Amino acid sequence: MPTVFEMSREELQELYGSASARYEECKAMGLKLDMSRGKPGLEQLALSDDMLNMFIDPSETKMDGVEARNYGELMGLPACRRLFAELLGVKYEQVFVGGSASLEMMYDVIAKAYTHGLLHSPEKWAKLDRVKFLCPAPGYDRHFTICESFGMEMITIPLLENGPDMDMVEELIKDPEVKGMWCVPKYSNPDGVVFSEETVSRIANMKPAAPDFLLMWDNAYCVHEFEGSFIPFVNILEACRLAGNPDMVFEFASTSKITFPGAGVSCFCCSEDNMAYMKKLWNAQIISYDKLNQLRHVKFFGNAAGVIAHMKRHAAVLKPKFDIVLDTLEEEIAPLGIATWHKPTGGYFVSLNTMEGCAKRVHQLCKEAGVVMTGAGATFPYKNDPKDSNLRIAPSFPPCDELAQAMQVLCLAIKIAALEKLLNK
Amino acid sequence: MPTVFEMSREELQELYGSASARYEECKAMGLKLDMSRGKPGLEQLALSDDMLNMFIDPSETKMDGVEARNYGELMGLPACRRLFAELLGVKYEQVFVGGSASLEMMYDVIAKAYTHGLLHSPEKWAKLDRVKFLCPAPGYDRHFTICESFGMEMITIPLLENGPDMDMVEELIKDPEVKGMWCVPKYSNPDGVVFSEETVSRIANMKPAAPDFLLMWDNAYCVHEFEGSFIPFVNILEACRLAGNPDMVFEFASTSKITFPGAGVSCFCCSEDNMAYMKKLWNAQIISYDKLNQLRHVKFFGNAAGVIAHMKRHAAVLKPKFDIVLDTLEEEIAPLGIATWHKPTGGYFVSLNTMEGCAKRVHQLCKEAGVVMTGAGATFPYKNDPKDSNLRIAPSFPPCDELAQAMQVLCLAIKIAALEKLLNK
Repeated sequence: MPTVFEMSREELQELYGSASARYEECKAMGLKLDMSRGKPGLEQLALSDDMLNMFIDPSETKMDGVEARNYGELMGLPACRRLFAELLGVKYEQVFVGGSASLEMMYDVIAKAYTHGLLHSPEKWAKLDRVKFLCPAPGYDRHFTICESFGMEMITIPLLENGPDMDMVEELIKDPEVKGMWCVPKYSNPDGVVFSEETVSRIANMKPAAPDFLLMWDNAYCVHEFEGSFIPFVNILEACRLAGNPDMVFEFASTSKITFPGAGVSCFCCSEDNMAYMKKLWNAQIISYDKLNQLRHVKFFGNAAGVIAHMKRHAAVLKPKFDIVLDTLEEEIAPLGIATWHKPTGGYFVSLNTMEGCAKRVHQLCKEAGVVMTGAGATFPYKNDPKDSNLRIAPSFPPCDELAQAMQVLCLAIKIAALEKLLNK
Repeated sequence: MPTVFEMSREELQELYGSASARYEECKAMGLKLDMSRGKPGLEQLALSDDMLNMFIDPSETKMDGVEARNYGELMGLPACRRLFAELLGVKYEQVFVGGSASLEMMYDVIAKAYTHGLLHSPEKWAKLDRVKFLCPAPGYDRHFTICESFGMEMITIPLLENGPDMDMVEELIKDPEVKGMWCVPKYSNPDGVVFSEETVSRIANMKPAAPDFLLMWDNAYCVHEFEGSFIPFVNILEACRLAGNPDMVFEFASTSKITFPGAGVSCFCCSEDNMAYMKKLWNAQIISYDKLNQLRHVKFFGNAAGVIAHMKRHAAVLKPKFDIVLDTLEEEIAPLGIATWHKPTGGYFVSLNTMEGCAKRVHQLCKEAGVVMTGAGATFPYKNDPKDSNLRIAPSFPPCDELAQAMQVLCLAIKIAALEKLLNK
């Protein structure tokens, strides 16, 4: 089969006609399918149902001298801090276990930069005329929403196959108004890119002009392989320390996509100096987070190996879904040459690049046929994808049969949008 | 028995001698007793152990179309919002159910005033030269810590027997730099004062110069009678609305002292306009809080009557402890006339006023004999009790026998400090 670029106008017309006809058939089915958010599916939720009804003997709620049913221990249940320390390869003293959402901890760290300043801030960010933040893109829309909420100026950094474009980053951080950068180092959202060791090393060795440059290291998918074995990752805290930047980085993780989304446990990790500083600020905010939920997680997993084993069960559910997405794209779209995509082995998304100027149209066509996708542009700062090309596919939530249907609709939409463009419709 | 003011110097000397001797005996016992924080005791924690091991069938985690095990529903599980709405007498639409700590929600509302401004703020508070906040005192130290953390100027308002000194408040709010006020309207911390209907009405009818005046209504002890039946309270949201101040107030509550401290459920309530504004800001912060814990609470209580019934069980544990405190003071201190105290019927504290200039000394004497009390001055802004008189007694945590011992030590300390003063020692 020739690519669209090798076809005659008649052939393109014919392809457009058949795709449109099939699309109209789908539309008539009144579908209601959702590939919009990185939500685990029901089968994945069920994997943690034992934790839902885990028996906790009141005699075992006191651990390490801390009563999990009562106030206290701002930094979290010691056993849960140990669990995250082991999982992330950091020191116990560097772990603060909080509530159910790492997103909230990220928001809080940035909010504190604004209201109080960070450890090395010459001034609170609220006092500054401008705060610029580096946003590798395609990226996670909720990171960008935080930046937008605080009125930051976001600077888009191309996300290459080994991580952010570090030539560009190293140039930009010479500007003292550039105050930080988002990173999802493993199975980036949405590309599924794993930062290379070289890239991580260049990040750790940055020499930003801002003394309070904030590296937001969102290790959201640190153990989220759905194909192959667990791949170890660099301890970014240690890498930054060795590079003379011990206080530059905050690392975040959670069990939202390990146990229950929104009812899991989150943490942040940072240098001990940062921790002392943050602990003092956090002490004004809360007495302690939910240590009973932390205890449930400790009992459910035991240790890091328990987490890794549990992730194998998620992988068994997720792999077939990613196969449906990738196989359908391979079959329907690849021969035509009208889109490219990453083939991730972990994380929650497939990042699709349509022909330039087609992503919004694809999104609209999907929507009209009852298939909800993440908004076109959402993976870029200000929802502004300069090429109008990127779409995020989230295969985890729908059951396999619905996903297969949704992918058929998506592929028809990709074809129609491309052909509309080629035929100047 | 004569009061100290009717005694001769010899009698005072004799009393001092006997109190000192008994104090030294206590000291020699090497006690380790804690009356410092409003923490429920173990017997109270046990009252909620059924919730710890509540069976939740995975088939019932989806309620009102919301799956509690998955992301979503920023404002909380509908059933839990209904529960708080019933309990607080507000509308469902006015309730936002969050994480485990109402303190964190209070912090967040104030943080947002700084970083984004409130609904009617001419400017973000971070841009202002000065923010003044009214602090009825004696009051809750953690409220004052929040103010201090944000660099507010705290203004102490005397807390009278019916609530804050409203003559003073009504005068001060003419200053547009006065941006808000803390209130614990029922069983105030630490005095146990219940604001009178007249005071609540005057508060609701305030006409502050600041258009974004923020009434922080911390209804922490809304159902926390330990003596007598549940006493209904005014719906402050409705009172403010009727007074033409619909957006002036945020009300806060939690189950920290109903189920498990630090592992309960918290909420804030506000006008629907405020809610629309806050919801948009909060959306940048978190996807959703722990709905499984919210579900546990809904199952455990059923409805507001279930909460009230549960509080009766807390009362049965707490009443004897408050009796120990009040009876010991009545017996040991009242005849001497060297201190006064409130006799609360709810809440968590007994507020004790020593002779002027004695509170720090009493605290020190207690500490040296192994009895930990909340720091003297902690109940005032900047930890500065102008009379050095107020001490907060928290009877809930120690078992009855330890509490009785601790109260003996405290009474000896009160006597010694008073006599030192009277004898110019």
